[in-house]
Amino acid sequence: MKEKGKISSAVIRRLPRYRRYLEDLLKKDVERISSGELSRHIGYTASQIRQDFNNFGGFGQQGYGYNVKSLYEAIGGIMGLNREYKMTIIGCGNVGQAIANYSYYYEQGFRVVSLFDVDETLIGSTINEIEVRDAETLGEYLAANAVDIGIICTSKSSAQEAADKLCAGGVKGIWNFAPMDLTVPENVALENVHLSDSLHSLAYYINENEKES
Amino acid sequence: MKEKGKISSAVIRRLPRYRRYLEDLLKKDVERISSGELSRHIGYTASQIRQDFNNFGGFGQQGYGYNVKSLYEAIGGIMGLNREYKMTIIGCGNVGQAIANYSYYYEQGFRVVSLFDVDETLIGSTINEIEVRDAETLGEYLAANAVDIGIICTSKSSAQEAADKLCAGGVKGIWNFAPMDLTVPENVALENVHLSDSLHSLAYYINENEKES
Repeated sequence: MKEKGKISSAVIRRLPRYRRYLEDLLKKDVERISSGELSRHIGYTASQIRQDFNNFGGFGQQGYGYNVKSLYEAIGGIMGLNREYKMTIIGCGNVGQAIANYSYYYEQGFRVVSLFDVDETLIGSTINEIEVRDAETLGEYLAANAVDIGIICTSKSSAQEAADKLCAGGVKGIWNFAPMDLTVPENVALENVHLSDSLHSLAYYINENEKES
Repeated sequence: MKEKGKISSAVIRRLPRYRRYLEDLLKKDVERISSGELSRHIGYTASQIRQDFNNFGGFGQQGYGYNVKSLYEAIGGIMGLNREYKMTIIGCGNVGQAIANYSYYYEQGFRVVSLFDVDETLIGSTINEIEVRDAETLGEYLAANAVDIGIICTSKSSAQEAADKLCAGGVKGIWNFAPMDLTVPENVALENVHLSDSLHSLAYYINENEKES
């Protein structure tokens, strides 16, 4: 087995997708699958799939393929999904509220435990049964409550300040929805969801398709 | 200038980011910038930046650098941001509502023109001044109204059906928020925002950091 740190980010990007497909197979009571069949479902080549899984030690057996449940659990373990993550949302506008209300990841151990905003009209209200706190109190809150992930849903101009406070307060990861790139310490993981970048890429491909047709 | 179709998807991914930085510079009234300075802002190497921009014909001048406004507009033009896109949202739950209310991209020509849902309690209500229509009527709506982008915010089980109807109705691109991979015809552009994949990647890196420390 290779050293964990050596796994390329491209492989890491593919893991959640493998896991989603395996989850679907589990729900359909499929017990085992070959890399060839998995390839037909997921679109990567069978050799790519075998190579990806070899990164974590070979889970497959020649002539049998992969046990769906074991592989699903192994990937979940590698990704750190066998534990709970406490999350706090900074900024309870449209995006923050949607994330507070979005339950898809709750069952997977990601739990929103607190919400913060600067807006007086929001502070004290509840979203999905969680009270919105005054953003001024974020520092003291984090000093008293361990939070794993800070979710930044503020405006662009407040995002870096929010990130600084979250990092100073000991969060281990930042999930950033503000349309800008943040600077965080090396020991804090950062994942961006740049919605407008995604929409702009879509616009590019729409225009390319129109030129071709 | 290379053929447009030959530009790698990695370059296309970087363009929205360049554009964001140039927008910030424009707001600060910066007139020109060298690839070296841009590199310090954005993190890519100066040589990478020059190479990226060369893909579209060199905008820079030796000893002068790049004119911020020209470069900003040129990138916008390449990405197809000099026109309007009409968008319809399928599924008006948390994510659909957030997108309907999220105004960040409105100023950039992306306009939500209609909303659809299957939920009787939502149909007829308005979100951001737009009425929620019965998803049953999507086909006839698209036959009468040109829509450029379909935004899928349905559950996993309804997403492919929504995509099929949107494609049959002539949309040019799909922006997919459902946690699954969709199949669309070749002439339809597809961009996925897999929130849980992003969160799972974050979990992976948090765990890796913990192992190292």
